[in-house]
Amino acid sequence: MNKKKPVQLLRDKAIIRFEGKDFLGEVGVDGRIFRSLTYARISVGLIVQQVAEKGISVLVNSHVADDAVACLTKEFAAELASGAVSQIFHISGVSVISFATDDFPQLMAELARNSIYPMLLNRSGADRQLNIVVGAGQDQKAVNIIEAEISAKPKTVHLAVLGNGRVGSALIDQVLSSAEEIRQRKKLDLKIIAVADSKEIVLDKNGFGSRWKEEAESMPTASAAEAVIRFGRLHQLENLIAVDVTTSVDVAEKYPLLAENGFDLVSSNKSYNVLPIGGYRDLRQILRKHNRRYLYETNVGAGLPLIDTIKLLHLSGENITRIRGVFSGSLSYIFNHFSAGNLPFSQVVNGAVKRGLTHEDLREDLSGKDVARKLLVLARELDLANELKDVRIDSFLPKRLLNCNAEEFEQSLQKADEHLEELKQNQQPGHVLRYIGDLHGDLHGDKGLMDVALHSVPVMSSFGRLSGSDSLFEIYTESYGENPITIIGAGAGAQVTARGVFGDILRISETK
Amino acid sequence: MNKKKPVQLLRDKAIIRFEGKDFLGEVGVDGRIFRSLTYARISVGLIVQQVAEKGISVLVNSHVADDAVACLTKEFAAELASGAVSQIFHISGVSVISFATDDFPQLMAELARNSIYPMLLNRSGADRQLNIVVGAGQDQKAVNIIEAEISAKPKTVHLAVLGNGRVGSALIDQVLSSAEEIRQRKKLDLKIIAVADSKEIVLDKNGFGSRWKEEAESMPTASAAEAVIRFGRLHQLENLIAVDVTTSVDVAEKYPLLAENGFDLVSSNKSYNVLPIGGYRDLRQILRKHNRRYLYETNVGAGLPLIDTIKLLHLSGENITRIRGVFSGSLSYIFNHFSAGNLPFSQVVNGAVKRGLTHEDLREDLSGKDVARKLLVLARELDLANELKDVRIDSFLPKRLLNCNAEEFEQSLQKADEHLEELKQNQQPGHVLRYIGDLHGDLHGDKGLMDVALHSVPVMSSFGRLSGSDSLFEIYTESYGENPITIIGAGAGAQVTARGVFGDILRISETK
Repeated sequence: MNKKKPVQLLRDKAIIRFEGKDFLGEVGVDGRIFRSLTYARISVGLIVQQVAEKGISVLVNSHVADDAVACLTKEFAAELASGAVSQIFHISGVSVISFATDDFPQLMAELARNSIYPMLLNRSGADRQLNIVVGAGQDQKAVNIIEAEISAKPKTVHLAVLGNGRVGSALIDQVLSSAEEIRQRKKLDLKIIAVADSKEIVLDKNGFGSRWKEEAESMPTASAAEAVIRFGRLHQLENLIAVDVTTSVDVAEKYPLLAENGFDLVSSNKSYNVLPIGGYRDLRQILRKHNRRYLYETNVGAGLPLIDTIKLLHLSGENITRIRGVFSGSLSYIFNHFSAGNLPFSQVVNGAVKRGLTHEDLREDLSGKDVARKLLVLARELDLANELKDVRIDSFLPKRLLNCNAEEFEQSLQKADEHLEELKQNQQPGHVLRYIGDLHGDLHGDKGLMDVALHSVPVMSSFGRLSGSDSLFEIYTESYGENPITIIGAGAGAQVTARGVFGDILRISETK
Repeated sequence: MNKKKPVQLLRDKAIIRFEGKDFLGEVGVDGRIFRSLTYARISVGLIVQQVAEKGISVLVNSHVADDAVACLTKEFAAELASGAVSQIFHISGVSVISFATDDFPQLMAELARNSIYPMLLNRSGADRQLNIVVGAGQDQKAVNIIEAEISAKPKTVHLAVLGNGRVGSALIDQVLSSAEEIRQRKKLDLKIIAVADSKEIVLDKNGFGSRWKEEAESMPTASAAEAVIRFGRLHQLENLIAVDVTTSVDVAEKYPLLAENGFDLVSSNKSYNVLPIGGYRDLRQILRKHNRRYLYETNVGAGLPLIDTIKLLHLSGENITRIRGVFSGSLSYIFNHFSAGNLPFSQVVNGAVKRGLTHEDLREDLSGKDVARKLLVLARELDLANELKDVRIDSFLPKRLLNCNAEEFEQSLQKADEHLEELKQNQQPGHVLRYIGDLHGDLHGDKGLMDVALHSVPVMSSFGRLSGSDSLFEIYTESYGENPITIIGAGAGAQVTARGVFGDILRISETK
C-alpha cells in the first residue's frame, strides 16, 4: 500500500520570475514561455501569473534554474532588447510543502505568527489540499507547525530561560511538573530549550527534562540572547518566548533584539521598564511593529494580578486617581515582624535574608530603590512620563550606611538598630510601622507624584493588619468610589514570583 | 497621472479546475491545456499547477468560465473517457485582490482570524506585491482588513451588545467615551454595530454615536444573535465580538451559534457557565474548533480580577486549596449595613434595591442562588465537574417567603425582619453577620464542596471589616502558604460591571 505522508516537503526548488509590462497581457506570451520550457525538457511544477503587476512565476527544480532562465532569455531576446520584457531571473532555495487541512485559517495564523511567508499558495475552493512555497530556511519550521496542527498534536512553545537563580530554578521546576497536564488540557507543549546565566548557556532543541541542572553546565557565552536567537534560527524553532528572570540590565538591553527576531518576552526584571522614557517607548514600538508581546506582571507584587488589572482599567477609560501600597514583600516582612515583636531591626532583616525574600544586595530593598522602581513601572502603565529621579524616597536608614559597600553594609546594619527602635517607640499607641509607596497627584497630567516613606499607621487599618511577607495594593478609581480595589498576598519569594512568570508565559501561549 | 489604488479588487472571476492523476506529470499536458485556451481566445489570469495532488487551477473571467470548461473538455475528451483526466469544472464567484505590503505575516494572521481563506496566493520572494484569490462573499471584508493594515489605520473591532439594561447602557457610554483614546493609543477602532434587547435590535454597520438611545428603537427581532450573524455576513464585518450583558438563558443558548459564525464572546451573563457540565464542555470544544475566545470575568466579582487570576494559577499548576468570599455585592451591602446600623432588615434591602445593586428579581440575591451560581463558575474553572444542585445553600429566609411570587415577596419581606433581628442579637459581642460562599474539600478530585451560608464573624476579621457593597475573595494555595491572595472591591453595580466587561473586550481586541 502506498501510504502517503500527511505533509510532503519538496526541497531544492527555484522560482523563475519573468517580468514585463503590458506586453504580458498579449495573448500568446504565456504560451511562448510555456512552450520554450517544454521544448527544453524543463519540467514545470507550478505556474503563477500575477494579475495586477504583470509578471509570471514558474517553479522548477533548482538544478535547472539557470537553464530555464537561459532558455527564456533566448526566446524573448527581442523583447528584452526592446524593453517590453524587463527582466528574467530566478529565486533559488525555496521548498514546496503540500498537505491537506480542515483548519486553514488557524494554520495560516500560526505560520504568520512565526513569520513564515508563503511565496506562493494554492488551494482550490472545494479542496482541503494546499501547496505552499516557502524559503528553505523556514521549511522545517513550517512542516513542524503544519504537522502539529493537522494531526491535532499539541502546539510546541519554546522557552529560553535567561537566569537560573532562585526564580529561574523554581520556574523550571514548575514548568516541568505542569507540562504534562498543560499538554493534555491546553494542547500546548512547553519546552525549555535554553537555560542561561551570566556566563554560560545550555541549549537543547528537544527541551530539557528534570535533569536540566546537571546538564546546565556547558557552553560559555558572551550574550545569552544572541545565542538563543542563533539557536532558534538554526533549528527553525517556532513559538519562541524569552523569559528573563535575572535582574540584569545587560539582559534587558537585548529585548529589542529578541523582539526583532521573533521572540515574545516575559520578564520579572524591572530594568527595561525603568529606563529613561525614550527607551521605554522605543521597545513598545518595536514590539508593535514585529507583532510581539511583552508581559511583566511580576515586576510589581510578584504573582498578584496588579499590572494587568491596572492596564485594563486604564485602557477602558477608568479614571485611576491613586495607587498606594506596601510594594515590597521583603520590607513588608521586615516591618511586620519588627513592629509585632521585640527583636532588634538588624536581626529581623537577617530573618528576611534567610527566608530568601531580599535582593542579593540588601540595600536594593532597604534603600527604598526597589519600591521606587515598582512605583515607576505602575506610573508608566498610566501613561505618565515620570522618571526614576521623580520618586521622593524618604529613607529610614542613615545615608552613611547606604553609601558603603555591600559587605560593610551588612556588617554595620546593627548601627541602625537604635534609630529604628526609637522610631518604633515614638509612635502613638496602637500604631505600627509600614513602608508605603504612593502614586498620586494629577494622574491625567504629564507626571504624577511618587512617594516612598516609612509611615506609622493604626494596627487595625488595612496596612496595619498586614502579616507575613504580604504586599498590599490599593487602587482608587472614580467608578469604584471611596473604597479602593484592594489586592493582598505574597509579594515576594521565588515560588510565587515564578508562578507569576508562568502565568505570563501561559497568557502568551494561549493566544499563539 | 495614473495614480494606482493601493488595493485593487478584481471581481467576477472563476477558477477552472482540471484534475487528473499521474497523467498530468507527462510533459506536454500543461501545454495542451494552455494552448487550447489560447486558441479559444480565453485570457488566462493566473495558472497554478498543484505539485503533490496532480491538478491544475486556471483563473479566468466569470463570463467565459463555461466556455473554458467546454474547450478543455473537448481537448481532453479521450483522456476523460479513459479516466486519465478525472474531472474538469469551474468554481465561480471568486475575486482577486492585489496589493503591496511590508507586513505580510501580520496581514495573513488578521485575514485568518477573520476566517478568510485565500484560495490562491502569489508573492515572489523579493517582492512586496501580493495577489490573493478569495470568495466573492468575503472580498470586501478582506479589502477592509488589508487597507487598514497597509495604511496603518486602526483595526476595526465590531461589537454587538446584546442587552441594553443598566450594564449595557453603562458599557455603551464607556466605550463611546473611550473610543477616541483607544484609537490613538492602541490603533483599535471599537464600533458598536448592534444593540439589542429581548424584543428589538438596532443595527448600524458604521457604528453608533452618542445618540444610540434614540436610534435604538426600531427593528423587532425574535433572535438578536441570528440578526447580528446575518448582518455581519451581509456587510462582511471583520473582528466581531458578541457582548452579552443580559441575564437571559435564551441569549446564552446562542453562544455556540455565534462562535461557529466567527464571533468571539464576552459575557457578564452566568447562564451558560452554570448549565449541566455537558453543555459547558461542548461550548468550549466549539470555541477551540473555531479558534474563538469566551471571556466572562464579570461572572464573579464584577470588575475584580478574580477569574483570570484563578484560571492562570490553576493552569500553571498552582494547587488551589480553597476559595472563600463574600461573593455578592448586594448581599455585602445588605449585611454590612444591617450589622452596622439599626434599621430593620427589609429597609436595608430596599436601600440596596434603590442603589441598583440587586437583581430585578430580588429573590435571586436573597435566596443565595446568585452566590451559588458564582461558586459553581469558579469550581468549574478548577476543572471540577460540580453541578448547581451540589451547592448547599443555607438560606436565611423562611422557605414560604421564597416560594411566593416576586411581588408578594417584596411586600412580605418585612415578615423576615424579626427573624433577622434575632440572628443579629444572638451573636457573640464584637461579631457581625456576613453571607459567605465557600469552595473547599478535595479540589483535585472530581467534585469540590460548595457551601453558601450566613456566618457570624468577628468585626475585626477581614470579612467583618468589609464595607459598602464590596466583595471579598480569598484564594488559598499551596505556594502562597497560610495567607491567601485576597481581592477586595466593588463587586456589584452597573458601572463597575460594565468596566469589567470592557476589560474583557480589550483583552480580546488586543490579540486580534
